Amino acid sequence: MSKPLSDHDRKKQISVRGLAGVENVADLKQNFNRHLHFTLVKDRNVATRRDYYFALAHTVRDHLMGRWIRTQQHYYEKDPKRVYYISLEFYMGRALQNTMVNLALENACDEAMYQMGLDMEELEDMEEDAGLGNGGLGRLAACFLDSMASLGLAGYGYGIRYEFGIFNQKIVNGWQVEEADDWLRFGNPWEKARPEYMRPVHFYGKTEHHPDGVKWVDTQVVLALPYDTPIPGYRNNIVNTMRLWSAKAPCEFNLKDFNVGGYIQAVLDRNLAENISRVLYPNDNFFEGKELRLKQEYFVVSATLQDIIRRFKVSKFGSREIARTDFSKLPEKVAIQLNDTHPAMAIPELMRVLVDEEKLGWETAWDICVRTCAYTNHTVLPEALERWPVDLFAHLLPRHLEIVYEINRRHLERVAAKFPGDQDRLRRMSLIEEGGQKRINMAHLCIVGSHAVNGVAQIHSDILKATVFKDFYEMEPHKFQNKTNGITPRRWLVMCNPWAGRGHR
Amino acid sequence: MSKPLSDHDRKKQISVRGLAGVENVADLKQNFNRHLHFTLVKDRNVATRRDYYFALAHTVRDHLMGRWIRTQQHYYEKDPKRVYYISLEFYMGRALQNTMVNLALENACDEAMYQMGLDMEELEDMEEDAGLGNGGLGRLAACFLDSMASLGLAGYGYGIRYEFGIFNQKIVNGWQVEEADDWLRFGNPWEKARPEYMRPVHFYGKTEHHPDGVKWVDTQVVLALPYDTPIPGYRNNIVNTMRLWSAKAPCEFNLKDFNVGGYIQAVLDRNLAENISRVLYPNDNFFEGKELRLKQEYFVVSATLQDIIRRFKVSKFGSREIARTDFSKLPEKVAIQLNDTHPAMAIPELMRVLVDEEKLGWETAWDICVRTCAYTNHTVLPEALERWPVDLFAHLLPRHLEIVYEINRRHLERVAAKFPGDQDRLRRMSLIEEGGQKRINMAHLCIVGSHAVNGVAQIHSDILKATVFKDFYEMEPHKFQNKTNGITPRRWLVMCNPWAGRGHR
Repeated sequence: MSKPLSDHDRKKQISVRGLAGVENVADLKQNFNRHLHFTLVKDRNVATRRDYYFALAHTVRDHLMGRWIRTQQHYYEKDPKRVYYISLEFYMGRALQNTMVNLALENACDEAMYQMGLDMEELEDMEEDAGLGNGGLGRLAACFLDSMASLGLAGYGYGIRYEFGIFNQKIVNGWQVEEADDWLRFGNPWEKARPEYMRPVHFYGKTEHHPDGVKWVDTQVVLALPYDTPIPGYRNNIVNTMRLWSAKAPCEFNLKDFNVGGYIQAVLDRNLAENISRVLYPNDNFFEGKELRLKQEYFVVSATLQDIIRRFKVSKFGSREIARTDFSKLPEKVAIQLNDTHPAMAIPELMRVLVDEEKLGWETAWDICVRTCAYTNHTVLPEALERWPVDLFAHLLPRHLEIVYEINRRHLERVAAKFPGDQDRLRRMSLIEEGGQKRINMAHLCIVGSHAVNGVAQIHSDILKATVFKDFYEMEPHKFQNKTNGITPRRWLVMCNPWAGRGHR
Repeated sequence: MSKPLSDHDRKKQISVRGLAGVENVADLKQNFNRHLHFTLVKDRNVATRRDYYFALAHTVRDHLMGRWIRTQQHYYEKDPKRVYYISLEFYMGRALQNTMVNLALENACDEAMYQMGLDMEELEDMEEDAGLGNGGLGRLAACFLDSMASLGLAGYGYGIRYEFGIFNQKIVNGWQVEEADDWLRFGNPWEKARPEYMRPVHFYGKTEHHPDGVKWVDTQVVLALPYDTPIPGYRNNIVNTMRLWSAKAPCEFNLKDFNVGGYIQAVLDRNLAENISRVLYPNDNFFEGKELRLKQEYFVVSATLQDIIRRFKVSKFGSREIARTDFSKLPEKVAIQLNDTHPAMAIPELMRVLVDEEKLGWETAWDICVRTCAYTNHTVLPEALERWPVDLFAHLLPRHLEIVYEINRRHLERVAAKFPGDQDRLRRMSLIEEGGQKRINMAHLCIVGSHAVNGVAQIHSDILKATVFKDFYEMEPHKFQNKTNGITPRRWLVMCNPWAGRGHR
């Protein structure tokens, strides 16, 4: 009578979980112990389960690093078109198992942990969830990053490194109580800070109109500090990058008049600047209109566009040494996808960079902008649509308000030319909503400034064309399309059915 | 004609800088490259000078880890008397060169960097200064840690991990302008966070007097998150620990009433709790009396005493399994050195733990407390002496105020017994200064609660006995002594004279 196979023994037979060769397992054990000793400064007398999780995470992470460096080097050399997916939310979840699956390391890691008397599932459970999203919108962003890496596309996720993600729910005496999601408390082995690529982001100030162009002056600066997370493709040696920005006050922040009390307060006030990346706004289906949220939106957009432009300029393009300055090539080399209207400021910001800084003419810049940007709509609920008060905008981003007004002026001219005499249509299609408090309709801005607009289900995309964006569909029907949301099928299927994948590649 | 020796060649000949054997150098280069690749995720195409500094720092740090683990394991097994040096300041400066010198790695590292075309002095210059002090008081603390490690004493430094150390001075148009010292911006390879040893620290609340003792209730909790820094002895394989506490708000902080605005504000308000470890108070010769500073002082004291008591209880002492609960042994196993009056709260806090929590009688507890604590005075300037308003104390630390009053009552009884009828002496020696705003004289508290009091120069110690502490000297002359400050002679001499140490061990 043969002994039935244990779970562990069964797993060992499954090729989908990767090779568990003796050499492989011995290496993993050695590196696990090295990380426990050198990275975590523990021996097995005092190590906790969390230490073991971190030792395993670092061991697995090491397998990403060479692929990550080589992938980025490859992009730098080949200069493919880059896809920049800008989103205020990336609902990534846990990284350990996904990385092991995509790198075909899971079986060998299982075996290594087993041989050391550790339980893989217990270790996996120690990982904090990267809950930087509310639901579908953020998970969609995460799935697209996974897909782009698996397809070998030069894709980048750009967002905010919230110190606190989606709150933890507790039920106390039958009532929901929220708890801050302090997900970084124990450290995050899946990110690498990149302080050497810090970017300044400007707020407030005023504009000056000179003969040689417009200057935005007297601004307050907040620094955007990037943290990079590797996004591995499925067994293809590709590792893409998600870059999340964290807000840092500059060193000279507020430090003017010296006395002990004033100095201490000035340092404490750095919090005000750094609050920009403190917490994810919960609720993605309700628009609240707070200045902090608008700051978040411009913060990610400004820092990201600086990265996009820098990468565009330094990329090889025939010549090795000369920085590329022909921005007419931008749409061939860069696609900017706006996940909902939250990063809509990318449109006026790109215009500001091209017109005010790169000194392009408006028409040329606008053509580049529209051919570069695309917009995904997520909801038709009126209460969820972003409509920023003009007053708030004027205070925080005075130059961008001017640009939005100019975009609107030219947009309404085109509408009037196509639909002469239709005053009500002009009112409906304006980027600026009049009546009561003047507001900027961010969805309208996105449609006008993009070459493609999609809903996330066929019926949703049809409703957009038939109702909320009907006027815009009639104006530019070619822009409207559909991209149905999906889950990551691989992670879902492989993890639910670990024994079903035999022989699957 | 022989070529004159280059600096590099001369250095290679010097044994004080350690062995630069071929094997040693090859290992260092390999580990340097491993860290550049796996830890910093860079190749030599894109690495910056700071990346090279970090790769070297991690390589050198690896040489500390085994010694650190073994030293702490050794202390755990041998259970020697521990010295706890509590200080609001540790002016550590840079760690890289000191570590290389103490581990005899400097020459091999020099050679390895030279072979890779890197300049050691340039790399050393990339290190941020750990400027967690104003001057002599903080540098003294750092020197004592160095000395204890070099002497093989089981010494611990306990303080605060200020996010911002002593400000950077800039001169703008002839005026001093301060800049925040954002020393952790690029990460700190010399510390290891220890979130698994986080401790709660209580503030505010009220006391309840029950028949079985006093309870301190309805407090606000801030968590103390420890970061450990290795303190290597000079070529003796000893690595001691400096543990600095960082303030963390608990997850449930302020999160009661839910709506989006209230939730966001509650998360942002965590800053208020975490401000405790935000910034070093500049000026160590002026007492300002702000609540935030008193919070800092109690924060380090409370978290540290929890560590001391825990380590005392679990230490082996004949028996392997049973926790030690005989606190009469505390002074044999623990010395607490108070660096100036800043950690003076250790005295009432130790009394609170022994009396309220461990249920010892007052007299027993007091005897233990005095035999455990010692106090270093740093100044005789009246404006620098800490005199906390009783009102502030009552609000922030109500139980400790009661304990200070009880200490004072018994203290004044002893004074009256020794100097009958001397009312003016009672007034002068009281821990509580009357008249106008009632204040607690923290130096008086330290003298009464310690078995040893020292100044930091012979003339200074003499002045203490002759003037400011004359009454106390007449009461308990045996407590008063002197410990003259010194610099770290080794670092000073070896680093100033790298070619002078030939053959020196």
